[in-house]
Amino acid sequence: MKLYDFAMAPNSRRVRIFIAEKNIKVPVEQVDLLSGENLEEKYRKKNQFCLVPTLELDDGTCIDEAPAICSYLESCYPEPRLLGTTPLEIAHVQSWDRHMENQGLACVGEMFRNGFAGFKNRSLPGRDGDKAIPDLIERGRRGVEFFYEHLESRLQQSKYIAGDTYSLADITAFCAIEFATTLRMPTPEGNTKSRSWYDSVAQRPATKA
Amino acid sequence: MKLYDFAMAPNSRRVRIFIAEKNIKVPVEQVDLLSGENLEEKYRKKNQFCLVPTLELDDGTCIDEAPAICSYLESCYPEPRLLGTTPLEIAHVQSWDRHMENQGLACVGEMFRNGFAGFKNRSLPGRDGDKAIPDLIERGRRGVEFFYEHLESRLQQSKYIAGDTYSLADITAFCAIEFATTLRMPTPEGNTKSRSWYDSVAQRPATKA
Repeated sequence: MKLYDFAMAPNSRRVRIFIAEKNIKVPVEQVDLLSGENLEEKYRKKNQFCLVPTLELDDGTCIDEAPAICSYLESCYPEPRLLGTTPLEIAHVQSWDRHMENQGLACVGEMFRNGFAGFKNRSLPGRDGDKAIPDLIERGRRGVEFFYEHLESRLQQSKYIAGDTYSLADITAFCAIEFATTLRMPTPEGNTKSRSWYDSVAQRPATKA
Repeated sequence: MKLYDFAMAPNSRRVRIFIAEKNIKVPVEQVDLLSGENLEEKYRKKNQFCLVPTLELDDGTCIDEAPAICSYLESCYPEPRLLGTTPLEIAHVQSWDRHMENQGLACVGEMFRNGFAGFKNRSLPGRDGDKAIPDLIERGRRGVEFFYEHLESRLQQSKYIAGDTYSLADITAFCAIEFATTLRMPTPEGNTKSRSWYDSVAQRPATKA
């Protein structure tokens, strides 16, 4: 197996942390999103949508989309379980992971993609020619505020995001917060549950991945 | 079980078709998105993010997010398989379903949400107070064109979207095209593979759901 990755991309980091939690080794090849290497023919053959990450299996089969890659890895390396065990847990992890992605990662991405000069004509991942839309910086910011508010509310009721057990939803939220922090939107001071949850996740060795 | 649904919402329709393919009956309760019933306290107790669909189990547990609801139903009612059988198939279905959602449904939704007068201050699903951004109508339109182009390319290589077998990815793409068609963006005439695939899916009894 090989993971096509871009070290700075939070969506790639999500998969790297997942892999590290599984305690397996997967060789990584960097695809430089900043220079547009993902849009070149060589990478397009691995991923027609020009997105990272992509997991390439030994027979050349490629799997894309972070949660789908994680689902495949969970089947191959079931322990520790990161996607739930019972049907209900599995559904809750998937649902919460989607919320953390859509409310967290996607909103930070919207702020970044529409505000960073290097992406002024590449405001959508994997695409070329989509002009940045300045109004989306503010929309993304409001989205991140909404994400923090709901995360705090959730962690007041639940040890981890999807329930009693650490899961991919925690990894995704962690990557979203890390990304938001680089854009000067760290977890608000008063969100004590979120802050202590974040500190405990940050201490996991896998988050060094 | 009960499904909270809005008949006109393509994301709800996706789950209704999935349920019909399973040949099970789940009572449906309508939540009127147009009047904002989803934003009211009564529904917020079922789904804090004010999104439809939500599946409520007999003990009151709620599952949201269409693919997570489908994952739960697939566990309870395994046949016919709509989410893949082997780990690789399962990953491919999940990945393609996400592409059909992000490239198809989400882009049509972007056109609709930012162009429909009734949502001028509700341009994001489940939220209130987000002003429509006119530039997103055009961005959504380009997204739908990209979706059609890649769908045609995929169906030139594969009988169904995620492989040899009909799956949730086909249901999602079908709902996206139906939605796009109401906004006068039907599948382009020349996309012959997509058109014949669409016609064959439309003949399935479940698509009457």
